[in-house]
Amino acid sequence: MKTQVAIVGAGPAGLLLGHLLRAEGIAVTIIERASPDYVLGRIRAGVLERTTTDLLHRLGIDARLNAEGLPHDGFMLADGERLIRIDVKALTGRNVTVYGQTEVTRDLMAAAPERGLEVIYDAGDVALHDIEGDAPYLTFTNDGREERLDARFIVGCDGFHGPSRKAIPASVGRTYEKVYPFGWLGILADVPPCDHELIYANHDRGFALASMRSETRSRYYVQVALDEKVEDWPDDRFWDELIVRLGPEAGGRVTRGPSIEKSIAPLRSFVFEPMRHGSLFLAGDSAHIVPPTGAKGLNLAASDVAYLAEALTGFFNRADHDGVAGYSDRALARVWKAERFSWQLTTLMHRFPGQTAFDRRIQVAELDYIARSKAARTAIAENYIGLPL
Amino acid sequence: MKTQVAIVGAGPAGLLLGHLLRAEGIAVTIIERASPDYVLGRIRAGVLERTTTDLLHRLGIDARLNAEGLPHDGFMLADGERLIRIDVKALTGRNVTVYGQTEVTRDLMAAAPERGLEVIYDAGDVALHDIEGDAPYLTFTNDGREERLDARFIVGCDGFHGPSRKAIPASVGRTYEKVYPFGWLGILADVPPCDHELIYANHDRGFALASMRSETRSRYYVQVALDEKVEDWPDDRFWDELIVRLGPEAGGRVTRGPSIEKSIAPLRSFVFEPMRHGSLFLAGDSAHIVPPTGAKGLNLAASDVAYLAEALTGFFNRADHDGVAGYSDRALARVWKAERFSWQLTTLMHRFPGQTAFDRRIQVAELDYIARSKAARTAIAENYIGLPL
Repeated sequence: MKTQVAIVGAGPAGLLLGHLLRAEGIAVTIIERASPDYVLGRIRAGVLERTTTDLLHRLGIDARLNAEGLPHDGFMLADGERLIRIDVKALTGRNVTVYGQTEVTRDLMAAAPERGLEVIYDAGDVALHDIEGDAPYLTFTNDGREERLDARFIVGCDGFHGPSRKAIPASVGRTYEKVYPFGWLGILADVPPCDHELIYANHDRGFALASMRSETRSRYYVQVALDEKVEDWPDDRFWDELIVRLGPEAGGRVTRGPSIEKSIAPLRSFVFEPMRHGSLFLAGDSAHIVPPTGAKGLNLAASDVAYLAEALTGFFNRADHDGVAGYSDRALARVWKAERFSWQLTTLMHRFPGQTAFDRRIQVAELDYIARSKAARTAIAENYIGLPL
Repeated sequence: MKTQVAIVGAGPAGLLLGHLLRAEGIAVTIIERASPDYVLGRIRAGVLERTTTDLLHRLGIDARLNAEGLPHDGFMLADGERLIRIDVKALTGRNVTVYGQTEVTRDLMAAAPERGLEVIYDAGDVALHDIEGDAPYLTFTNDGREERLDARFIVGCDGFHGPSRKAIPASVGRTYEKVYPFGWLGILADVPPCDHELIYANHDRGFALASMRSETRSRYYVQVALDEKVEDWPDDRFWDELIVRLGPEAGGRVTRGPSIEKSIAPLRSFVFEPMRHGSLFLAGDSAHIVPPTGAKGLNLAASDVAYLAEALTGFFNRADHDGVAGYSDRALARVWKAERFSWQLTTLMHRFPGQTAFDRRIQVAELDYIARSKAARTAIAENYIGLPL
């Protein structure tokens, strides 16, 4: 088999890139190790920047997004007592859209056949070869057969654990990492959300987040120690803790209900540099991870893909190699700013083991300052909607 | 002896408060353990917020300030290569004034006799008594004689090491502290400054600050490890290091010259709560210390004093006790925001032992974000000129 761009991974990053390249007439094949159902079973964030929704609109893969996406004009920071509204729309003129990552993936997946975007699912033993030359190729198994896919470029959209980043020699790459000393215990429940906007709370007992997937499905989180187990958190205990941490106003509006999903996720900041090596590009989680605070993960994958689609279109359609050469630096400049924002919001809103009384007062003072300063709220809002491409 | 307000300490905080109270006809006596020359020998920061200059203008103790103070409309952040200008005037409509703290003290001291502000210098063994009741008093020695000064209130403007804060029982107070793992090696030299504005630089080799006292006197600093000694830093070594850290552009404009003062100062964040206990108030460094980054120390003392002058004037002249009751909370709300800003700017601009590659990249990304975001620069500028009283 032969194609122009071989993409490893059919998550939202890989599918979005595939569609963007197909729209420019570039041949693309996506190789995915899992089944479509497995891919759709991953529950992830649900706040889309305009950068991300703009790409979906441009592709015209936006019917359900337009019908079901919830425009959010702001969000709240809570300090245990007060709710501080970040009026994103008023401060920046733009808004975000709440629409689950799973739904984005589903829409992109559904549109693939009609647009000639080939996706091979259930591929085994995916391996990258000759990435340093002009003729890289992938090998994998498909229905028990050994396959080889030749391409001009390979793009790794295969997440943190995929083979693409690992194909880059250790001598070439540099890794930056921060592991946070806590996790997020999250539940999904078919109850109306306590507020029509997201609430990030920093309570003396720890962080909590009130979020939603729709007007009838809520997504809530509480910060827990890394050694906590899901079994120790029956629904009642979760709701009790959540309500206290959200504070009297928002907590008082929480509707309890049975959880339909409950899990603990660790928090990590991670960046791998460079994002291109020879004929291999990395995009999304294969190159960088942000903690979920601020919901930058999917949006950062989308901006990588936007840069990369532009670079590859230039290469194939205009013989312009500058985009390919500049991709890594250009993507990393935006990645690092989002890493910074996610780290900052995480640091501001969580309790840290070993946090001193001074550190805690600094958090309180920062929240008080944000409540009073339009400039501070504007800075948060412009990061929340996504910095310009 | 008897007065209405007894002030411990004739530094800028005590003298400023004394003048403000005298202007309202309130009887004041200041007790200072050192000599006038010793007080004037302390070299401190030199960037005055409008909050501070407004108080001096209101008192009319501003002839030299008006003649010699240098209005600064902005300052620079340097990241080793680039200079990022924070155009304070354009972003906030206000500016700051460079005028040495020593000069402020000198002006306030000179104006004391003509305004009936009594200052007793060289007082020994200053001690506070009965601060929990309505009739507190000070004892001290003066020219070998034991003296007693009765007052309705005592105000501790006696700095971090003075007796006032220590007079508050440990069971009542709470201390918040952060000690930074480095110091500032500073020199004063009679050479023209390398720039007409301040430059805060975060170089791979560490922090540096280009500052000045006048158009012919420069004040420069470099971050050093806590175990460094002044003797290890002959002038040439200092200038070499400074020039590298300021980067090619600003470093290239540095004029070398013999140092007329050279010392290493540790950096500390410290807050004591509450700032009133019974009939004792704390103001300035007796209650809180900030690291010098951002030059908030004197300005925070000035805002404490502004609140306190208002409170005491209400008490004595209008029988309004609310200001006295509310002083501590009101002052602390502003103190904590300045502590936050000083800590944040210190954290952004210094190299920390144990700083990871991730942490360093976050600093670089933050500086890059500040360079591109008007909202971020506005937030810095509004803190730099001083948050509203």
